[in-house]
Amino acid sequence: MTTVGILGGGQLARMLALSGAPLGLRFLVMDTAADACAGQFVPMVVGDYRDEAALSEFASRIDVATFDFENVPAESAQWLSNRVPVFPNPRALATAQDRLAEKTLFRELGIPVPPFATIDTREQLDAAIAAIGLPCILKTRRLGYDGKGQFRVRTAADADAAWQALGAQAGKVGLILEGFVAFERELSVVAVRGRDGEFRAWPLTENWHVDGVLSVSLAPARVDAALAETALAHARKLADALDYVGVFALELFCRDGELLANELAPRVHNSGHWTIEGAETSQFENHLRAVLGLPLGDTRMLGHACMLNWIGEMPDASAVLSEPGGHWHDYGKSPRAGRKVGHATLRADSTQGLAASLQRIGAGLGRESQVEPVVQALAR
Amino acid sequence: MTTVGILGGGQLARMLALSGAPLGLRFLVMDTAADACAGQFVPMVVGDYRDEAALSEFASRIDVATFDFENVPAESAQWLSNRVPVFPNPRALATAQDRLAEKTLFRELGIPVPPFATIDTREQLDAAIAAIGLPCILKTRRLGYDGKGQFRVRTAADADAAWQALGAQAGKVGLILEGFVAFERELSVVAVRGRDGEFRAWPLTENWHVDGVLSVSLAPARVDAALAETALAHARKLADALDYVGVFALELFCRDGELLANELAPRVHNSGHWTIEGAETSQFENHLRAVLGLPLGDTRMLGHACMLNWIGEMPDASAVLSEPGGHWHDYGKSPRAGRKVGHATLRADSTQGLAASLQRIGAGLGRESQVEPVVQALAR
Ligand SMILES: Nc1ncnc2c1ncn2[C@@H]1O[C@H](COP(=O)(O)OP(=O)(O)OP(=O)(O)O)[C@@H](O)[C@H]1O
Ligand SMILES: Nc1ncnc2c1ncn2[C@@H]1O[C@H](COP(=O)(O)OP(=O)(O)OP(=O)(O)O)[C@@H](O)[C@H]1O
Repeated sequence: MTTVGILGGGQLARMLALSGAPLGLRFLVMDTAADACAGQFVPMVVGDYRDEAALSEFASRIDVATFDFENVPAESAQWLSNRVPVFPNPRALATAQDRLAEKTLFRELGIPVPPFATIDTREQLDAAIAAIGLPCILKTRRLGYDGKGQFRVRTAADADAAWQALGAQAGKVGLILEGFVAFERELSVVAVRGRDGEFRAWPLTENWHVDGVLSVSLAPARVDAALAETALAHARKLADALDYVGVFALELFCRDGELLANELAPRVHNSGHWTIEGAETSQFENHLRAVLGLPLGDTRMLGHACMLNWIGEMPDASAVLSEPGGHWHDYGKSPRAGRKVGHATLRADSTQGLAASLQRIGAGLGRESQVEPVVQALAR
Repeated sequence: MTTVGILGGGQLARMLALSGAPLGLRFLVMDTAADACAGQFVPMVVGDYRDEAALSEFASRIDVATFDFENVPAESAQWLSNRVPVFPNPRALATAQDRLAEKTLFRELGIPVPPFATIDTREQLDAAIAAIGLPCILKTRRLGYDGKGQFRVRTAADADAAWQALGAQAGKVGLILEGFVAFERELSVVAVRGRDGEFRAWPLTENWHVDGVLSVSLAPARVDAALAETALAHARKLADALDYVGVFALELFCRDGELLANELAPRVHNSGHWTIEGAETSQFENHLRAVLGLPLGDTRMLGHACMLNWIGEMPDASAVLSEPGGHWHDYGKSPRAGRKVGHATLRADSTQGLAASLQRIGAGLGRESQVEPVVQALAR
């Protein structure tokens, strides 16, 4: 009997456990919050990731460790990896935690990125704005998620406000200035790499964000085959370079038909939730297969899929449950503004069927604006 | 937050909980065994089903109750139904628990059954053998499962042995003699009926038993549309008559192209396990949707599916995990002769693909004889 330890007990840990149970696995989750939603189905160690006693108890009860949350302190991951196998490896984790390290690696590997510069002082900010051009975007190097720790610089006059908002972080988590990409679309590669280096990717996904948070994903993305192949090749190169084991997402911007890498999420990813019903093997199951050294599962799609994120609170389920291909995911969280509390996946055999389904749901829930961009994309 | 109570904590309860978690449900299982496998993911009340204190604790912590196990004492189900809603209703449960009540109902509804007679004495056994003809099969009326509590009567001389084996049960659980059906195939309808009477069925399944225990299921069954329609009509009539709510299976024999009803399983059923990966909505999720009064999910298939039961101990997983449509289900049980410990489901877009996959798995696991009947059926 193998017990998989997961650092972080949110919805990703919860979905990992639910999809790993049929493999005969047991789970143990470590989280700072006693009411983390994975704890509804999985035993937990509650404690700070820097608390060695808690980490030590966690380590003693598991056979292998992985992450639901990438912002675990790098030292904690390192400490753990001296006791049990940890996948992805701490170096991959450390790279993905730092926008500078990540973008530097992308560049080294020949994966195009928007222009960027590290910012330590107010003067560097001005110089970097001049070099990179407007608009641009100031971000914390570490600990950002769901668009938090970002400030858009539209005009030179915004530099002051940007520095006021984030300048204090320069000496702490660090800052990076990036060129703002006027993208036509955002895409993600969700892929998995096995312990033996085998690489598989799900079809490319197209994503729409609202206020920096993922709102809707569509798979397969409506892009030409050559672009999809380039995206997959970038993901593979990256995974090989990091000796990455498990599932990850590479987020990409597409502008004028060119791909620019935004970031690497070193874990199962929100833009891959549709794989639960929409692919032969889900990202969750394949992550566990990879981490355990089992054969990887087939990543091919079953038709077309669209994922709608529920932020803040769950809408009424019936509109989705009444759709032939409608699947409901309630993470069992209490409502809170901006919190990811659940999602729905719609699966259909045709893009027309998917669009019709989305329109009924948009109307049924009064969420026309959420489904609109996908309906438009499907009509292209 | 809704908590579903499940009487019985085996693999059916476990799979119900795993498929119900995404609906935002919590679960509580009651079982006599502290190590019941659903307990690995779900809190449990350990106690005898007749223990009112345990039942009372169970009832106080749940919103609605259902079954993983149909041989819960009818009085316990009745007791519980005075406290919380119980689905299926206790009358449906009581009918399905008793082969005599069940077959009598089938007959009343015009659903053909093999000839049968109740047996209370040794003399009645002789008379019934003479009336029904040979071969026939003596069964306990209640508490039989997986072919247990059955004795085949091939010649008149077998009557003594049959009586010796089961006669003592006549005054306890009762006995029934049934004509032995020289069937060409065994089929099951797995279907669901909602609280509002809505009825949906998955495509007909063909089943193969070994030593009275299900070994393999194939869906859709290779039968003509008219036969499948008749089978579904039988199931619907039965569900309506019992005001049944939830998933059930109607097991049928097919002889000379005619259907004869064998039994009603008042719960999710082993022959419906393939629906997890092989259908848009699984039997587990639809059972919960029905019990909770939610809209029923689509029961249509995604291609072709075959389920292989693992009895006694789990084989090595890799042959199945290496197949493109191979899915693994380890119930987390310790091995024991005759015990259902897990299953595999193979999904494929074509019957040829499914047959090829089965042959590779049969060879890989040295289980050619288990897959052989399905491979032959697929070649028909
Ligand atoms: N350089 C950029 N140009 C244009 N848009 C950007 C840029 N950087 C970020 N964005 C927008 O903000 C969103 C979130 O940014 P990013 O992925 O860097 O942040 P994050 O906080 O790590 O988000 P997540 O948790 O979704 O990964 C992006 O998906 C994109 O829509
Ligand atoms: N009357 C019969 N004629 C021919 N075969 C029979 C008959 N009754 C039972 N069998 C065989 O034995 C198997 C198990 O019988 P039955 O379904 O009555 O028992 P059970 O113990 O309730 O099984 P399960 O737990 O699988 O429902 C049947 O699937 C069939 O293969």
